[in-house]
Amino acid sequence: MKNLIVGQSGGPTAVINSSLYGVIQEAFLHTDEIENVYGMINGIEGFLKGKYTDLRAEMPPETLQALRITPGAYLGSCRYKLPEDLNDTVYPELFNRFRELNIGYFFYIGGNDSMDTVSKLSRYATEHREEIRIIGIPKTIDNDLINTDHTPGFGSAAKYVAASVCEIGIDASVYDTKSVTIVEIMGRHAGWLTAAGVLARKFKGDNPVLIYLPETDFDQEQFIADVQKAFQSKNNLVVCVSEGIHDKTGKFICEYENEAGTDTFGHKMLTGCGKYLENLVKSRLNVKVRSVELNVNQRCSAFAQSLTDSREAAKAGSFGVTAALKGETGKMVSFIRDNSVSYDISCGLVDVDEVCNKEKCVPLSWITGNGTDISQEFIDYALPLIQGNPAIPMKSGLPNYAYRK
Amino acid sequence: MKNLIVGQSGGPTAVINSSLYGVIQEAFLHTDEIENVYGMINGIEGFLKGKYTDLRAEMPPETLQALRITPGAYLGSCRYKLPEDLNDTVYPELFNRFRELNIGYFFYIGGNDSMDTVSKLSRYATEHREEIRIIGIPKTIDNDLINTDHTPGFGSAAKYVAASVCEIGIDASVYDTKSVTIVEIMGRHAGWLTAAGVLARKFKGDNPVLIYLPETDFDQEQFIADVQKAFQSKNNLVVCVSEGIHDKTGKFICEYENEAGTDTFGHKMLTGCGKYLENLVKSRLNVKVRSVELNVNQRCSAFAQSLTDSREAAKAGSFGVTAALKGETGKMVSFIRDNSVSYDISCGLVDVDEVCNKEKCVPLSWITGNGTDISQEFIDYALPLIQGNPAIPMKSGLPNYAYRK
Repeated sequence: MKNLIVGQSGGPTAVINSSLYGVIQEAFLHTDEIENVYGMINGIEGFLKGKYTDLRAEMPPETLQALRITPGAYLGSCRYKLPEDLNDTVYPELFNRFRELNIGYFFYIGGNDSMDTVSKLSRYATEHREEIRIIGIPKTIDNDLINTDHTPGFGSAAKYVAASVCEIGIDASVYDTKSVTIVEIMGRHAGWLTAAGVLARKFKGDNPVLIYLPETDFDQEQFIADVQKAFQSKNNLVVCVSEGIHDKTGKFICEYENEAGTDTFGHKMLTGCGKYLENLVKSRLNVKVRSVELNVNQRCSAFAQSLTDSREAAKAGSFGVTAALKGETGKMVSFIRDNSVSYDISCGLVDVDEVCNKEKCVPLSWITGNGTDISQEFIDYALPLIQGNPAIPMKSGLPNYAYRK
Repeated sequence: MKNLIVGQSGGPTAVINSSLYGVIQEAFLHTDEIENVYGMINGIEGFLKGKYTDLRAEMPPETLQALRITPGAYLGSCRYKLPEDLNDTVYPELFNRFRELNIGYFFYIGGNDSMDTVSKLSRYATEHREEIRIIGIPKTIDNDLINTDHTPGFGSAAKYVAASVCEIGIDASVYDTKSVTIVEIMGRHAGWLTAAGVLARKFKGDNPVLIYLPETDFDQEQFIADVQKAFQSKNNLVVCVSEGIHDKTGKFICEYENEAGTDTFGHKMLTGCGKYLENLVKSRLNVKVRSVELNVNQRCSAFAQSLTDSREAAKAGSFGVTAALKGETGKMVSFIRDNSVSYDISCGLVDVDEVCNKEKCVPLSWITGNGTDISQEFIDYALPLIQGNPAIPMKSGLPNYAYRK
């Protein structure tokens, strides 16, 4: 009988631990095929240093259940890129460790870069006839993986963004004076998360009135004109911008601010495009301006976790385990949407070599209003993903998350 | 029979509308004593421009119920200070409007400045024998009003801060590399909300490892030494700072950054102390640093609304109405804590003249570790205030808040 090992990699999400839950609980069911269940600490990088844990020993049922609602990466994560050259010494080093632990099943929960790891390991395993099945479980708030309807982690982040933008709109509207509030949202190259700001609108004309994604070029003069036009019908404007908006030469808008000056310590100032646009509006229009960077909470908050997202993340994990047990390797679990009656997701498998290092952007046809708005198609696509609130067990008034000390 | 008018003033909170709910539903019960129930739009400032609404007409039961969980200020708010001179023409102007609407009961939900309005109006009314009873309902996330155990709005903001700091700690700890994350929290003069960061700790030694309030002086060299010491036992540090921290000369730490340079448009750069400390740590220690400004969401989010806070806010509103009906005027509703068996709050009345324009700070004896930590007394004080989660009605996956178009 072989053992299983699972790791997490890349940035945290609200539901990466839900996928971990899916892998573990499915593995625990197959006591006839899987002996030990190990977790890599800090992904492949920690594993190379000999860091792993026996999950059956450290995971009582209540901790396993708490994983379902715990944001972040319970096992710790890493940003470690395996060498392109499969003849590098790191590969035999890794597979020696796998052999020592009698690993037959390897699961890696992550985004683009993590799928690159899955691709390299599975190609190495094939070349060297290593008896280990290697499966990737997708996760990223960016929703930029190809060959899957969406990625686990996006739904909860989108819900956090939509709910936060809605509340920022409420906050911005309490005074009767003209104001612009710029909300900077994560997404360097793909605007999926920023587009989710549109879900905050409760009625036609409601905030956010302007939404800018990195899929199109951003023109500063046009932006000022857009804001002035929006003031014709509304006093308090909320504007969503992706951190990765750029001009037509490809220069990021945040780079304009960062060129401006140095901080107290003589270093280049590093701020985002939200701060830059705040200063731009302040210098050009005589109105109150504020910028809000949603920052890390958009990827690590379980306040606004989507039950749909959390369930799908767990499903992806358990589907990966059953696929590996059937002999699959070198695959990433994907989501296939069935909209024929109502929203339904089934899991599939795609070749991980095709997925890694590619990026799925928001279709240009879903970006409307000359790059200032988001179409109904996006709303129809995203709305099912933010549905439902998981019951969060509380302790002393705060969520009772699972953690390793 | 007289009419009632209610207004909201100052910055939004998660539960200011809960107090509005309390006032309205109590007023609706006394059909034998109160005829119409009006709402000022944008507080006293909007009312002076003739802006008010008939709440019985615009408030169906479902909207009234939705008020209980809706953050922000449903009626709109203002920052309007009445003249010190009670002989100013604005006073007869206001009282003429009250007389025109046959107002017998005036309620103002707000913080320090709003209590100043309540004080001035009630003194004017007494001097001029105006037959109108004037009551203040406290609210502020800052918790800085005197003569009350705490203020409605603080509990929910404290819960938001504690839950966010906890999640930021989870996010910061996923990688194995040394890092400092600085969380900047609202509170210019009083550190109550920043102190609530301590509630995020799940075990001894957990984040946040350092907490700095504006009640004590902040020394930059000592801060660097504190961080270095904390690294001896932990790799990923979360530090909470109040926006109002200052050095021993009284100079705000954020002013250091703002002196640094100008933005792209030649204006003084305006950032907070979190950004400054991020740059300070970066320049002195060779570690990853990030700063997170919790920003407006800490005062306007219902994600982490405290049921205790929401219920108490409503209770303060309804208590104010019954007090006015009994003949009280010139008072602010206060909270009196009974800890004899378990946490219990009853409402009282305090002289509004004594409350306004004063500030309650965190007791120095509750600040420990040479100004870097918070004592158990604070935890015992604050923990009951963040208990319970109200059921939030959802629509399309997002909270279904009450709103005026």
